[in-house]
Amino acid sequence: MQEKISLAPWQVLERREVLDASPWVRVWVERVRLPSGRTIDDFWQMALPDFVVVVPQTPEGRILLVRLYRHGARRTTLALPGGFVEPGEDPSATARRELVEETGYTAPHWQALGAFFVDANRGQWKAHLFRAWPARQTSRPHTDDAEALEVVLLTPQEALQAVRTGEVALLSSATALALALAPPFSA
Amino acid sequence: MQEKISLAPWQVLERREVLDASPWVRVWVERVRLPSGRTIDDFWQMALPDFVVVVPQTPEGRILLVRLYRHGARRTTLALPGGFVEPGEDPSATARRELVEETGYTAPHWQALGAFFVDANRGQWKAHLFRAWPARQTSRPHTDDAEALEVVLLTPQEALQAVRTGEVALLSSATALALALAPPFSA
Repeated sequence: MQEKISLAPWQVLERREVLDASPWVRVWVERVRLPSGRTIDDFWQMALPDFVVVVPQTPEGRILLVRLYRHGARRTTLALPGGFVEPGEDPSATARRELVEETGYTAPHWQALGAFFVDANRGQWKAHLFRAWPARQTSRPHTDDAEALEVVLLTPQEALQAVRTGEVALLSSATALALALAPPFSA
Repeated sequence: MQEKISLAPWQVLERREVLDASPWVRVWVERVRLPSGRTIDDFWQMALPDFVVVVPQTPEGRILLVRLYRHGARRTTLALPGGFVEPGEDPSATARRELVEETGYTAPHWQALGAFFVDANRGQWKAHLFRAWPARQTSRPHTDDAEALEVVLLTPQEALQAVRTGEVALLSSATALALALAPPFSA
C-alpha cells in the first residue's frame, strides 16, 4: 500500500563487476538503498552500446527498409538501417555512416526523432532515432557477410502496416517508423 | 561489396555459458557459422525476461501514465504501466495483473498491439504491447517501495507530445503510445 511516495534516486552502496565483454556487454551487481531505507542486495545492471535507427525517405516518398537475418531473434525481419554507435562517435554521425554503409544511400536533410532508453531498469544505453530525406543511392553498400541485407522500398502506409503485422519485428524500428510517419508526429 | 546475399540462418557450432543470474539475466557466447562459410568465435547472446506495456484509457478518454524512478536510467520518467512476464505466464495475463497492481485500475476491453524484439542481435526477449479501455480505478495499488509511482492522466495529444519531448524516455512506452494513439494505427 502506498502511504507516501518518493521518487528520489536510489543510493548505490556497493558495486561488483561480474562480466566485462566490452564493447558488447558489461554486467555488474549493485547493492542499493531505496528512499524508504530498505536495501536490495543484488540489483543487476548492464551496459550495452547505444545504437541508431534511420527512417530514410526517397524523393518519390518511399521508405527505405532492409530485410535481414538477426541471429539473436533467430529469424529474418524487416527493419530500418542502423547500427551501433562507436566509442566517442556522435549518434548523428553514426546515423549518416550506417545509412551509406548498409544501403549506399545518402540524404541532405536529417531530423532527430528522439533518444530512448532501451531498458531503463537495467542501464542507460539508448536508441537514437533519425529521419533522413530525400535519400538517393550514391554508392554501392559496404557491408560484410555478417550484415547481409536486402533493400526494400515501401510506401509510408505499407511500412506502418508492416509494423502492425509484425513483419517489422524490432522495437526500435517500430518506434522510429511511428515517430517519423504517423500523424500527429510527422505533422 | 555484395556479390550474393544470403539471409539464411546462422549455424551455432558451440555455446559457452558465461553468466546465469536467472530470471534477470543470462549471458552466453556462441561460435557461429555464417552462410558465407566464415565463422565468428564470440557472438554474445543474452536472455532477459519478456515484459508487457499497457496503454490504459479512461472513460473520459484520458491516457493513464505513471511517473517513476528507473534506477538503470538514473532518472524519473513518464512511462506506461507494465512489468516482467513471470515464467509460464501468458503476457495478456501479465498485462492485466500489472495494471491493477501498479495503479488499482482495471478495464473490460483489451487489444494486443504487437510483440517486438527488444534487441534482435542479442536475444529473443520481447516487449508485449497492449491497449485497455475503459479503465477505471477499482482498488488501491499494490506496489512495494521498489515500484513507487505516481499516476498521471493525460489527453492522447498530451501523451504523444510527452513522447516527442522525451518526457516519456522509454522505448517500449513510446512505441506503445504511438501504436495505440497515432493514426493510422489507432484507426
